[in-house]
Amino acid sequence: MAGLNPAFERLQGNYLFAEVRRRVDAQAQADPSADIISMGIGDVSQPLVPAVLDALRKAVDEMGDAATFRGYGPEQGYAFLREAVVRHDFAPRGVALSPDEIFISDGAKCDIGNIQELFAPGAVVALTDPVYPVYLDSNLMAGRGAGPDGIILLPCVAENNFAPALPGRRPDIIYLCCPNNPTGTALSRDELARWVDYARREEAVILFDAAYEAFISDPAVPHSIYEIPGALDVALEFRSFSKTAGFTGLRCAYAVIPHGVRGRASDGSLRPLHPMWARRQSTKYNGCPYIVQRAAEAVYTPEAQSALADVLAVYRRNAQAIRRTLAGCGLRVFGGEHSPYVWVKTPDGMLSWDFFDMLLRRAGVVCTPGQGFGPSGEGYARFTAFASEEHTARAMERLSSLF
Amino acid sequence: MAGLNPAFERLQGNYLFAEVRRRVDAQAQADPSADIISMGIGDVSQPLVPAVLDALRKAVDEMGDAATFRGYGPEQGYAFLREAVVRHDFAPRGVALSPDEIFISDGAKCDIGNIQELFAPGAVVALTDPVYPVYLDSNLMAGRGAGPDGIILLPCVAENNFAPALPGRRPDIIYLCCPNNPTGTALSRDELARWVDYARREEAVILFDAAYEAFISDPAVPHSIYEIPGALDVALEFRSFSKTAGFTGLRCAYAVIPHGVRGRASDGSLRPLHPMWARRQSTKYNGCPYIVQRAAEAVYTPEAQSALADVLAVYRRNAQAIRRTLAGCGLRVFGGEHSPYVWVKTPDGMLSWDFFDMLLRRAGVVCTPGQGFGPSGEGYARFTAFASEEHTARAMERLSSLF
Repeated sequence: MAGLNPAFERLQGNYLFAEVRRRVDAQAQADPSADIISMGIGDVSQPLVPAVLDALRKAVDEMGDAATFRGYGPEQGYAFLREAVVRHDFAPRGVALSPDEIFISDGAKCDIGNIQELFAPGAVVALTDPVYPVYLDSNLMAGRGAGPDGIILLPCVAENNFAPALPGRRPDIIYLCCPNNPTGTALSRDELARWVDYARREEAVILFDAAYEAFISDPAVPHSIYEIPGALDVALEFRSFSKTAGFTGLRCAYAVIPHGVRGRASDGSLRPLHPMWARRQSTKYNGCPYIVQRAAEAVYTPEAQSALADVLAVYRRNAQAIRRTLAGCGLRVFGGEHSPYVWVKTPDGMLSWDFFDMLLRRAGVVCTPGQGFGPSGEGYARFTAFASEEHTARAMERLSSLF
Repeated sequence: MAGLNPAFERLQGNYLFAEVRRRVDAQAQADPSADIISMGIGDVSQPLVPAVLDALRKAVDEMGDAATFRGYGPEQGYAFLREAVVRHDFAPRGVALSPDEIFISDGAKCDIGNIQELFAPGAVVALTDPVYPVYLDSNLMAGRGAGPDGIILLPCVAENNFAPALPGRRPDIIYLCCPNNPTGTALSRDELARWVDYARREEAVILFDAAYEAFISDPAVPHSIYEIPGALDVALEFRSFSKTAGFTGLRCAYAVIPHGVRGRASDGSLRPLHPMWARRQSTKYNGCPYIVQRAAEAVYTPEAQSALADVLAVYRRNAQAIRRTLAGCGLRVFGGEHSPYVWVKTPDGMLSWDFFDMLLRRAGVVCTPGQGFGPSGEGYARFTAFASEEHTARAMERLSSLF
């Protein structure tokens, strides 16, 4: 038969969240009366805000009239949305991008998963550890990281304040997620500047995942890596409307591919990544739905911004409640101040999955075991602030009486 | 700097339709009074039908209420849509599929572009020629087809009635597009059976692109490759709501990955492709928007089916008008009977791009040069039936007086 991609054989069988779901289902079957509260998956619970719904409805009406119907849109996204992104997300922070450096898509997961296609099969990859599993898996699927010169893991643990040390050997590509999923911590301006300097010196490309930037509460923490001088030459940035505007079910995100970011072609010359990504997207992608792009555009209206501030406030209060409760239980607690994620050290060196099982069985509360995010996540667990306030309060009550 | 993927260097610089657009823009600038009519791109012109719009509106309302809001959906698509697909597209044709063999996505272009990731880097690829450029480009990007054992091209020309001969050497994967883009011709049941038998004998996998099946007008032509006995073991099928329901701007499609289709793992054992595609999609994709899946579900309602029959009738009449006019001009005309595409032999051995330029300059009509679909497309041009009836009639008038 046709030969299969051998790289898939090196993947873990179960995606982390599938294993979480399996154990939750088993518990629900074992104890049908259990009222299980999920604080495991990073999915939002609050509905779309009225200004976004209005934009969606208006766009749906357009699709029903031959005069305003839209078929294939530009693969890179409509200009109205690319211009809005530049004007609202970057210009106010002093970052000068042109709309043609923005590529609209249906998800940061897709962009982050696909971007590795632009790099050589033998490119050396550096990942912070623990981290969002897609960075590792998408590179394993491409056949990277097989030999002894495999993936470079950069541990982020309480001992180094979750700020990764620079790699001991040179990587070609470096994934940074800030605010971090799962640790909920953010890198300071100085720490980010250290990475930009390193990438410039070592001629590496930084893939900067800023899906959670809306949760940053300290004005000193950069929202974009392009707030760091020199980053426009070495960094790509990934953003999403999922967590900032409740678009997890609507699907819209964007990648920033500045014209200045270059890599080494086979003849040794430097070539920009921008036309490669444009070619990749126009070959394997057909653009985000028109109606969804109109909804995303509406996110930037004053009405939506005001309503979304209230939604973010719900998630922020939840994060504070989780921090307060778990710290009150005597656990060491991190993150949750610039992020919807609270990262907790398990008590007495308990393994992540054991801690997960204990909470599930004894309190009916679902967290995510840290080990699922990488070896340095062992001995930690992630709690998300995305449940409703009522569910969060009930879960915290149960945990208070558990410890 | 980071090493770039050298496979991208082997791609043509311009995607075919970008070059068409460039020449059209140049003509519009040179002659601002020209009323240019596009019969080049395969995009629909008729709006969404009322039943689909109603489903969209209802789903948008659900997204505005916390009780019915939907965040992340299953990466594979909601069960309601996968079940509707099996019930309406396959069961009536005697094809027994289970809903978990259906993977909903945001486009057949994405599925067809991504599916090659499941196969070994050295897999040998066979393509009919001319054909939709994504098959070739996505394999070139993955590094396939570089050496002397490159891509196998199977010419489809008037001389063989556009039915490709079996390959002279064994391929691992075979792309078939039926009804074909760009030739507009369909393979008969016997011809398809010959391919299924060949794939079974040679242990190859057929990737069957059926994006245009709704246009089939002869009941003897199969709509699905699974109507051929034995195909469930060797073929994947790709379908789309784009052309059948006007979803080019809404984005919904699906891939059929039967449990029985297997490939050869590195240890020589046979393994199913289904879990590999599930792993690929759950790692690099986050599902099609809920509201779009509800719209796609509504395509199968009697109200939508009746309205869509009228829309298809418009495109069919256009295709007939194009065939009639061009034949009346003394040109040799193919396709257009099971397809929105009419494939025309250029007069006097004229090159495709010369024919394209002549029609653009002298009649203000845009076609697609056949050479852009592969070497065997040289000397042909593609006309699409997707323009409005009024535009199609006007374009045909001009062509009548040109020849």
